[in-house]
Amino acid sequence: MFESAEIGHVIDKSTYKAEEAALREALLEVQYELKQRGEFPLLLLIHGMDGAGRGETLNQINEWLDPRLIHTAAFDAPNDDARERPWMWRYWRELPAKGRIGMFFGSYYSDALFDRVDSKTNRDAFDKQLFDILRFERMLANDGVLVLKFWLHLAEDKQKKRLKLLEKDPATAWRVTEADWKHHGQYSRIKNNAEHMMRLTNTAYAPWLVVDGEDANYRSLTVGRALLQALQQRLALDHVWQARSDVAAITPPADNKLLLESLQLDQAFSKDDYKQQLEALQGRLNGLTRHPKFAEHSLVLAFEGNDAAGKGGAIRRITQALDARRYRIVPVAAPTEEERAMPWLWRFWRHVPGKGKVTIFDRTWYGRVLVERVEGFAETADWMRGYYEINDFEHQLRDNNAIVLKFWLAISADEQLSRFKSREETGFKRFKITEEDWRNRDKWDDYKVAVCDMIDRTSTSAVPWTLVAANNKYYARIKILTTICEALEAKLGA
Amino acid sequence: MFESAEIGHVIDKSTYKAEEAALREALLEVQYELKQRGEFPLLLLIHGMDGAGRGETLNQINEWLDPRLIHTAAFDAPNDDARERPWMWRYWRELPAKGRIGMFFGSYYSDALFDRVDSKTNRDAFDKQLFDILRFERMLANDGVLVLKFWLHLAEDKQKKRLKLLEKDPATAWRVTEADWKHHGQYSRIKNNAEHMMRLTNTAYAPWLVVDGEDANYRSLTVGRALLQALQQRLALDHVWQARSDVAAITPPADNKLLLESLQLDQAFSKDDYKQQLEALQGRLNGLTRHPKFAEHSLVLAFEGNDAAGKGGAIRRITQALDARRYRIVPVAAPTEEERAMPWLWRFWRHVPGKGKVTIFDRTWYGRVLVERVEGFAETADWMRGYYEINDFEHQLRDNNAIVLKFWLAISADEQLSRFKSREETGFKRFKITEEDWRNRDKWDDYKVAVCDMIDRTSTSAVPWTLVAANNKYYARIKILTTICEALEAKLGA
Repeated sequence: MFESAEIGHVIDKSTYKAEEAALREALLEVQYELKQRGEFPLLLLIHGMDGAGRGETLNQINEWLDPRLIHTAAFDAPNDDARERPWMWRYWRELPAKGRIGMFFGSYYSDALFDRVDSKTNRDAFDKQLFDILRFERMLANDGVLVLKFWLHLAEDKQKKRLKLLEKDPATAWRVTEADWKHHGQYSRIKNNAEHMMRLTNTAYAPWLVVDGEDANYRSLTVGRALLQALQQRLALDHVWQARSDVAAITPPADNKLLLESLQLDQAFSKDDYKQQLEALQGRLNGLTRHPKFAEHSLVLAFEGNDAAGKGGAIRRITQALDARRYRIVPVAAPTEEERAMPWLWRFWRHVPGKGKVTIFDRTWYGRVLVERVEGFAETADWMRGYYEINDFEHQLRDNNAIVLKFWLAISADEQLSRFKSREETGFKRFKITEEDWRNRDKWDDYKVAVCDMIDRTSTSAVPWTLVAANNKYYARIKILTTICEALEAKLGA
Repeated sequence: MFESAEIGHVIDKSTYKAEEAALREALLEVQYELKQRGEFPLLLLIHGMDGAGRGETLNQINEWLDPRLIHTAAFDAPNDDARERPWMWRYWRELPAKGRIGMFFGSYYSDALFDRVDSKTNRDAFDKQLFDILRFERMLANDGVLVLKFWLHLAEDKQKKRLKLLEKDPATAWRVTEADWKHHGQYSRIKNNAEHMMRLTNTAYAPWLVVDGEDANYRSLTVGRALLQALQQRLALDHVWQARSDVAAITPPADNKLLLESLQLDQAFSKDDYKQQLEALQGRLNGLTRHPKFAEHSLVLAFEGNDAAGKGGAIRRITQALDARRYRIVPVAAPTEEERAMPWLWRFWRHVPGKGKVTIFDRTWYGRVLVERVEGFAETADWMRGYYEINDFEHQLRDNNAIVLKFWLAISADEQLSRFKSREETGFKRFKITEEDWRNRDKWDDYKVAVCDMIDRTSTSAVPWTLVAANNKYYARIKILTTICEALEAKLGA
């Protein structure tokens, strides 16, 4: 979920300055339209890691916009008045009126998250609180409130650096509190629980936006643009807002730097090394699937990737290591008539493996947010809810002890072209290349954006995506087998 | 929630026969249209108390409709295949395809409910499961599935009678199992948890329908009509179904017998008795609000009723017993401009009392589902979600230790007329009667239906409605004061 926010987004000063003036003017304009029309309020929740610039973002927004029309509320520990009343009371009190902007620094999410991080609640109680929040936000949305939730992110090592830097300078040392260091010590606990929280509360009508908080220019521009876009989109609606069908669009990174582009696609790996390691890995994998503890688990492998990225070859290297009675390959193409008559996830649910079994999906449920999105087979509202539904599906598998691993096999456009050509030239491979493959290639950039969104919204620490550089197929196969073996070993304690 | 299902609905044989033939034909007709159009499936969940006729209902539907197009699935304890997979897997497997009807005898709701009843789960884990269900049904609804959930009800004493009757006859004795008697012993635990479950999962797109199960004719007609109405309504839509905005209408009882009509409005009570008891009750109430334990609680009194039913007089008899520093009366009229700019419940949240305090609402948040419904001030989808939002609000108060009591003061149309006239004749009471009161009177029947729906959908054992027969104001005031004192005593252990 935080992948794209950790690849180091930067916007240089001159680019920033050039855009800031226009952005500011546009923001002021929509703010006045919001005020003048007085039809709905905007509620902004600012959350994130310590040191990721939450306070600065709040100040920036107040500086850019007309602060007289912004109501800022910071929530720390509840006071007596609040403690005597239901949990949500103090948030109700600070809600913005129609035409206004409310900005919450911390919110009910902080209560839920830190009660969990500090073990004041167990996982069920945490989920119950998230359920409370979901109902609250659904009610706000139904009453017309536009809700935007920002998570400003900062990787663990960068957080440490930032806190040390601030401490060193006498002018900023006061900014670093004991709580900051305490939270730094809890970093992975905060991250994992925040991820769970955001997964369950990321709705179309009140979406989470994860922003890389390291570079101030990037952070400000991203937040400002998202704000502008959300307000413009809502103000431009020619019908009454409906929480179900009107969804927020996804904003691309302000510096146009995509996660996939940070992957080094060419990796050196010789055929000899490959042969040697392959045998060892296959033996290791075979042993792991025979491990007595594996009988309490199942393994779900999901393969996606560019056309001709080598999914089939990689899958064969896995099945060679498996007992034929234990595994099943499910090739996913267009849904059958029977499948089209059912809710869309049904065709994947039917292949959920039992204990001790392995199911390998060659293409998967991610078609919903890839091909169906890019080709327009599904409406925006439908593929948008797909992220939520997919997360829900995978976490149900995982809560049932399944080990779920997802691989994206990435090749470059050039590599794909040469593979396409060689397929056309090689008789027995000719069936592998179709008109559709060439058509998909034309939409290379659209797919790239869809893949990055997919990874950001569905990679969680419990059910992660593994990005596989696949220009070199030997490297890719070894990487995949190693990932599977390591995940099994970690789970089985083997 | 079960109020209207416990007032003894009966439909005689000849009425039943007369209607059954037409209903059956109409049902077959919509079933074929459903099949022919093949646009969406219908999923029926049949739940309820033991002995309330769940099996009979299932058979009845299979008899009325074309059973070849109905897929019936009964869910008992999960088998090995199911136990190895996520909880929801076995329900996914039995989902009906587009154009078909799926009927579940027991479902994921039974799993959640009985795990809680048998204390296998605690309250948080129960809520988490309900949250899982809510997401599942939202997904179904978004994918077009029409979901109807029936709860066939039977009061505790009637359940006992039914089980004994079945046992006595050798021909039916086999129907009564040990599990039935076990559930009978858990009756109130099942009822309370079912109520909680239905409250949290009663959505506009997948509503619960509570049906009095005692009389077979009434039960069958009610279920059949609800089915017919839901299918007709959906098939008649001239746009693609949207889970957010298209809602199921509320079906009136098949015998047109309303809860309010079961109330005996005239009650004998002399002024002398009143004076005597009033003083004692006021003293008792005063003492209770000074009880040391009351400092951990608060008291929220909600008054609704017919115009001129005597709310003001009743409230005065309460406040006479209270320390002025402890209570506050909130008269609720049309929302102010400030209030209209906020989500609708905001104007009630702002008056939530702190610990040791009493807030008396003279008219309440129930205006949303009464006047706003009847006068068309709110759209159907909006007042429908009001039930859910009101329940949520009140249960947040209650979870925060508030004692919430709701009173409906009911008078007859004749009594109201004579009070209106006497108000017009008495100088100092003249301000109490307006044109609007006369207009409301014209909509007497609409209000009656709205009041009954309101009570059915918002009276829970934790936050109950008290229906007060108020033709005799002395009786009404004593009843109200007694109810308050008893609720306080129960809560404070005083």
